[in-house]
Amino acid sequence: MNCEVVAVGTELLLGQIVDTNSSWIGEQLALAGIDCFLQVKVGDNWDRIRDALQIALDRSDAVIVCGGLGPTQDDITRDVIAEVMGVELVEDPEVIERLHEIFGSRGRNMPMNNLRQAQVPEGASRIAQMPGTAPGLMCPIGDKVIFAVPGVPYEMKEMVEGTVIPELRRRAGDTGVIRSRTIRTWGHSESGIAEMLADRLDELDRTGTATIAFLASGIEGLKVRVTAKADTAEQADAVVAAEIDEVAKILADYVFTTEDQTMEEVVLDLLRERGLTLGLAESLTGGLIASRLVSIPGASDVLQGSVVSYASEVKFDVLGVPVGPVVSDDAVRAMSEGACRVLNSDVGIAVTGVAGPDEQEGVPVGTVFMATTLDGVTETSMAKFPFNREQSRQFTVITVLDHLRRRLLAR
Amino acid sequence: MNCEVVAVGTELLLGQIVDTNSSWIGEQLALAGIDCFLQVKVGDNWDRIRDALQIALDRSDAVIVCGGLGPTQDDITRDVIAEVMGVELVEDPEVIERLHEIFGSRGRNMPMNNLRQAQVPEGASRIAQMPGTAPGLMCPIGDKVIFAVPGVPYEMKEMVEGTVIPELRRRAGDTGVIRSRTIRTWGHSESGIAEMLADRLDELDRTGTATIAFLASGIEGLKVRVTAKADTAEQADAVVAAEIDEVAKILADYVFTTEDQTMEEVVLDLLRERGLTLGLAESLTGGLIASRLVSIPGASDVLQGSVVSYASEVKFDVLGVPVGPVVSDDAVRAMSEGACRVLNSDVGIAVTGVAGPDEQEGVPVGTVFMATTLDGVTETSMAKFPFNREQSRQFTVITVLDHLRRRLLAR
Repeated sequence: MNCEVVAVGTELLLGQIVDTNSSWIGEQLALAGIDCFLQVKVGDNWDRIRDALQIALDRSDAVIVCGGLGPTQDDITRDVIAEVMGVELVEDPEVIERLHEIFGSRGRNMPMNNLRQAQVPEGASRIAQMPGTAPGLMCPIGDKVIFAVPGVPYEMKEMVEGTVIPELRRRAGDTGVIRSRTIRTWGHSESGIAEMLADRLDELDRTGTATIAFLASGIEGLKVRVTAKADTAEQADAVVAAEIDEVAKILADYVFTTEDQTMEEVVLDLLRERGLTLGLAESLTGGLIASRLVSIPGASDVLQGSVVSYASEVKFDVLGVPVGPVVSDDAVRAMSEGACRVLNSDVGIAVTGVAGPDEQEGVPVGTVFMATTLDGVTETSMAKFPFNREQSRQFTVITVLDHLRRRLLAR
Repeated sequence: MNCEVVAVGTELLLGQIVDTNSSWIGEQLALAGIDCFLQVKVGDNWDRIRDALQIALDRSDAVIVCGGLGPTQDDITRDVIAEVMGVELVEDPEVIERLHEIFGSRGRNMPMNNLRQAQVPEGASRIAQMPGTAPGLMCPIGDKVIFAVPGVPYEMKEMVEGTVIPELRRRAGDTGVIRSRTIRTWGHSESGIAEMLADRLDELDRTGTATIAFLASGIEGLKVRVTAKADTAEQADAVVAAEIDEVAKILADYVFTTEDQTMEEVVLDLLRERGLTLGLAESLTGGLIASRLVSIPGASDVLQGSVVSYASEVKFDVLGVPVGPVVSDDAVRAMSEGACRVLNSDVGIAVTGVAGPDEQEGVPVGTVFMATTLDGVTETSMAKFPFNREQSRQFTVITVLDHLRRRLLAR
């Protein structure tokens, strides 16, 4: 079974929008064991969409066409598919009813243009998931099939996950169910993690019960994805859960979540469960730790605030850092304890360092001092990041949060 | 003249890398007035690359193939192009010499695999820009042409800008030079900006001296791009500069830069020129204003720091906000003045608001109070953003920085 992807939209060719939809669809197809040999971007042009669909259909068992299902005159995907199928468009009364419902619930009259979205090629069926106003379509052509899904990412994703992939797998004679879950780790390299799991990978190669893939994801952590296939979702989930447990046991405290949470969520949850509040003192990161924490709903239960002490005098005057070198172990320790005092928090985190472009007080660019204060005890560490300004900051955030995580767990 | 783009790499189809190269190339082609009707992604497979190139060449005047020029066995773009051209690969001694130089200067021996990169289809010529080890190729086939460029973005960009686009324009009989510059605005909608420029757009339609395009770019501001074509770069630059002046005059203080700077850069520059330091008090934005300012090298000249007062008690205790409702005009005013006092800064910015998911003190989600303190005078404003948590924060950052920008200019 192989499936091509055709993304429709002149704005994609002009580079106004990057086509991330095809990449995401490609990943889902690969996960489901369906080959995807070609992906095409084509503008909103009747002849060229038709030719692109025809060529794709000649080469492949299935085509997913993404975009061009909206209500405007530009949106011609429905019409072109009908031509490729050699059928007429017919009106789908259920879609019209749904459109009236959507517009009615918003207290607005429906523009006549939207009725175009109820036009369906004869013989095509609607894709069940309909989060927006544009229904997706499943269009059989002989023993092949064209799926049409909207270009709006969340609508597209619902339809691809809910209908397109299961239907492709059914057509491939593949009646099993594929499930996967992700572990996230921090503090070890990809090759290091792979080495720790070498025996387990060999074992899985032999038994074939599950597969493991590594995805280096920058500040999201290094992800380890476990995938398994079984006759039912329950069976597949059980295999994945058992394997996640095995892998988590081997990787021990490098694992910060088996539930695909971010490091920020994990640390906020650990603090909340223990009834602890957090205060920050940030120099190098300039507010980035606070800003990433507050992007998690409910952060206000835990986070008191942050003193972004970019100027040295703010470190001295507000945080009570002793006058002296401000990129140092002593300074970061005083900052973390100062954060607890000034912000009246149980726990402190502090970061100072040299972002560059120039060295500071003789300390080279990329040097970072980090501190955490917990139960009145402050621990510090130093790192040298070989990255640029922005990456160094991002890596500092996840690294210092990971320090606090480990201390909270070891408490 | 029309030109297709073929991006080569199995990792693109698997969704491990998003194909931003094609988007960028598409934008450059559009700017140069060259049509690009199709873009294709294909894996590292001989037959499929050959077929993709052949189909593209049948349809178009030119093809840019991106990727697959590296030294490994997977990198077969050179070989496939030779087959499509119907020629042999020949060794290019200059490339070999260059490879030896590159490896020599790094004190490393050259792996034999790298010699593959010196294999060039007979009749093809090297693209002059060679930042890395993979030379780009210009491969004429009858009156058509295939350009092969590396997948590494900065190498690809140098070659496309330096050779591919000029050569395509030469082939199109287009000897002029195209230049463009961008104005960024804030505070008015895209349709509002378009309305202000309506007469100017009509005028340009008549005279054809330049074109104007709008690009809504979220927190980057609404961009207005002016493009002109002339016989020489100097002439085109002069036309663009004159038109930028016209447009900037019409849009007046909605324009925050005619030099494509970010709002953060503009505000930091204005403060630095005036010898003023800045202190922040952030609740809703949770450190985001500080974090975006410190990502600009040299921010430390201006930025003293930020008090991220997420908890109400930090507003009261650290910033001296009077006990009472913390999402209010009074509170934001006290925060801004508190920031100046605590951080010892000349200028203050403060933000408080309701990020959601729930309302706070009876104030609905999306409500934001902003303040700026300058020369001892604090001005406040209120906004209601209909966005999600993250977008509200981002829009707040650029909106409050824009307030300060206007005050600094009006001073």
